[in-house]
Amino acid sequence: MEQSRIISGGVTAPQGFLAAGVAAGIKQNGNKDVALLYSAAPAVAAAVFTTNAFAAAPVQVSRRTAARGVARAVVANSGCANACTGAQGLADAVAMAELAGKVLDIAPQEVFVASTGVIGRPLPMQKIAAAIRAAAGRLSPGGAGDALAAIMTTDTRPKEIALEFNLAGQTVRLGAMAKGSGMIHPNMATMLAFITTDANILPCALKKALQAAVEASFHMVTVDGDTSTNDMVVALANGQAGNKEISSPGDPGYDVFAAALTRACVHLAQCIARDGEGATKFLAITVRGAVDFTDAKRAAMAIARSPLVKTAFFGEDPNWGRILCAVGYAGIQVDPGKVSLFLGDVPVVRHGLPLPCQPEILARIMAGHDIDVTVDLALGEAAATVWTCDLSHEYVRINGEYTT
Amino acid sequence: MEQSRIISGGVTAPQGFLAAGVAAGIKQNGNKDVALLYSAAPAVAAAVFTTNAFAAAPVQVSRRTAARGVARAVVANSGCANACTGAQGLADAVAMAELAGKVLDIAPQEVFVASTGVIGRPLPMQKIAAAIRAAAGRLSPGGAGDALAAIMTTDTRPKEIALEFNLAGQTVRLGAMAKGSGMIHPNMATMLAFITTDANILPCALKKALQAAVEASFHMVTVDGDTSTNDMVVALANGQAGNKEISSPGDPGYDVFAAALTRACVHLAQCIARDGEGATKFLAITVRGAVDFTDAKRAAMAIARSPLVKTAFFGEDPNWGRILCAVGYAGIQVDPGKVSLFLGDVPVVRHGLPLPCQPEILARIMAGHDIDVTVDLALGEAAATVWTCDLSHEYVRINGEYTT
Repeated sequence: MEQSRIISGGVTAPQGFLAAGVAAGIKQNGNKDVALLYSAAPAVAAAVFTTNAFAAAPVQVSRRTAARGVARAVVANSGCANACTGAQGLADAVAMAELAGKVLDIAPQEVFVASTGVIGRPLPMQKIAAAIRAAAGRLSPGGAGDALAAIMTTDTRPKEIALEFNLAGQTVRLGAMAKGSGMIHPNMATMLAFITTDANILPCALKKALQAAVEASFHMVTVDGDTSTNDMVVALANGQAGNKEISSPGDPGYDVFAAALTRACVHLAQCIARDGEGATKFLAITVRGAVDFTDAKRAAMAIARSPLVKTAFFGEDPNWGRILCAVGYAGIQVDPGKVSLFLGDVPVVRHGLPLPCQPEILARIMAGHDIDVTVDLALGEAAATVWTCDLSHEYVRINGEYTT
Repeated sequence: MEQSRIISGGVTAPQGFLAAGVAAGIKQNGNKDVALLYSAAPAVAAAVFTTNAFAAAPVQVSRRTAARGVARAVVANSGCANACTGAQGLADAVAMAELAGKVLDIAPQEVFVASTGVIGRPLPMQKIAAAIRAAAGRLSPGGAGDALAAIMTTDTRPKEIALEFNLAGQTVRLGAMAKGSGMIHPNMATMLAFITTDANILPCALKKALQAAVEASFHMVTVDGDTSTNDMVVALANGQAGNKEISSPGDPGYDVFAAALTRACVHLAQCIARDGEGATKFLAITVRGAVDFTDAKRAAMAIARSPLVKTAFFGEDPNWGRILCAVGYAGIQVDPGKVSLFLGDVPVVRHGLPLPCQPEILARIMAGHDIDVTVDLALGEAAATVWTCDLSHEYVRINGEYTT
């Protein structure tokens, strides 16, 4: 049973967090595109970043902030990724931190910087400077929605959650928001996620809990197999809940806190797959009976990445051979004669052989929006579930017309 | 300069080869779907097969034929892959070899068996038996086109070539045909290729030349990143040209033969990328300046597989950030500050920084059908070129409606 319960308020649900989102004019449609998130009290910080070699300038700046383990603010923009922008891009990202630090009266080293959007274009710094000033004037405990709107790009739906749980009599809150729809693949996706909590927790414990939560959530989702240049997940914990300090994973309260953090991240990760560019289906791909987790995840990812599998689901075509084909090239330990496959709860392959299936039953499963696919390798005890979406005409349209 | 010249005749261009293709009724549209290829003289044989763990029954049977190093015939069907069909599928593939052996009066061990089409359905053996008998009656030195038609599935164009070259005064011919359009990725693709030659060459030399040719051709093409269950490349050499026997790579004539074989395979591999499902563009992705070939190929493949890159080319959107992004997650040695990028012959990034480009010039390049993309890592001397196509609405349509 979950020990946390869902509440409203997003990233400003925890005590002492304020947020704002404004339109700087980076997005051509005039939508909000600069977000500011601020903790009124000093906060400890942890973060996970993209593994892409072309890590964008804001990632490089935010890595330094994360290394210090304390921070109080996040400034983020959408519409321009500030990636592949060289020394000027780095100077611009540093300037964003300095501008935010100045208006918030904190050190620039306490500011995380994040950008998402088109790669290879310079940031319009005058517009951004004006927007940061404007956002600072609008910071409010009800600003989570505006901040979230300002980080969205091709997202069609806001992605946020807030949770409340109890640590030895103290009520603790955790809020989280994310953007991400395309260029989504582990390590990480074109994905920004910001997590706030009023828990009292030391940086090393927060970092450990965040890494575990990211492994179980954002690293289990793929939309198109592209690991972007700009991803980051940032967690800020300002201690305002007044719970007894969590200093290590052995401490009372760590497990409840870590479970809530993982719950929030899994929720956001599933939201991202549901809102994958052009998605018409949400697919939960489970591979079980693997010799180890690595094999289970690799096979589930191979299925989830296959354009043939994804287009078949879009077309509601129960062409399950493509699923086994993907398992076959995943590079895992597999005995084709032992494999079973289920679409929803209907067994379609047992011990490597097709089972007679009524077409109407398969058609009903394929017509659903949320579809479970389960492959049982029958070799061991390990299992992994990866979340993804189908590949539709709309994906092609969105991505054929992105910059022009 | 090429030492071989293109001639007509496909797989029946070399002396002593006959072919036929007939309609067995496996394809619902009544098109040809059973092919027979026969060498009037005993031939040595070499083959390369899919690495998919769910290797189809015909792959399993043909592996045994390849291991013997001599063969005289290929029987192939389209419309049904005979994959994931268990013991019955294996028995059916063996029966195909036996039926072909019987009508051709050769041992079943001398027959390669190949299938392509939907996975998980049993072969209609009565129809296939009748078709093999019919095909045997129609074998002819002009039958290459019919045989090729009978192995095509979603292919929109036939893929074949024939070459003639001189080995110490003897004219030698080599013919080749292939099918393949979707489920295309190295090691191998849903791709069948059959190569005939009247060269006099020993099995070990043929095998070595074939492996090198496949590395340089079929393993450098990707359409959708899916490695199928049924791929095979088979080469038959019947010695009818009367050239001095090529017994090893050191022999005179080996290099000329190997170059012609590679030329034929590269031609077919490029044909496959050009005819990728729904393709509107042919993309040649070159990564140079890499520390080694593995890095160069890995980076080129990452670009070629990226749905974001492929949809951008479909939309004629010069969104080159996605190309560098793919290089960045390819897992290779790269220094972002050294990388240059060219679209066609236009430099768009130098030393990691965008160059000012005239939009009209980029638009003209993106509007082309054949587009070269070149990434220079400026770290070493190694290079690799991968061929692929764009990702279009038509790909989604074709693959959303494949079995239903």
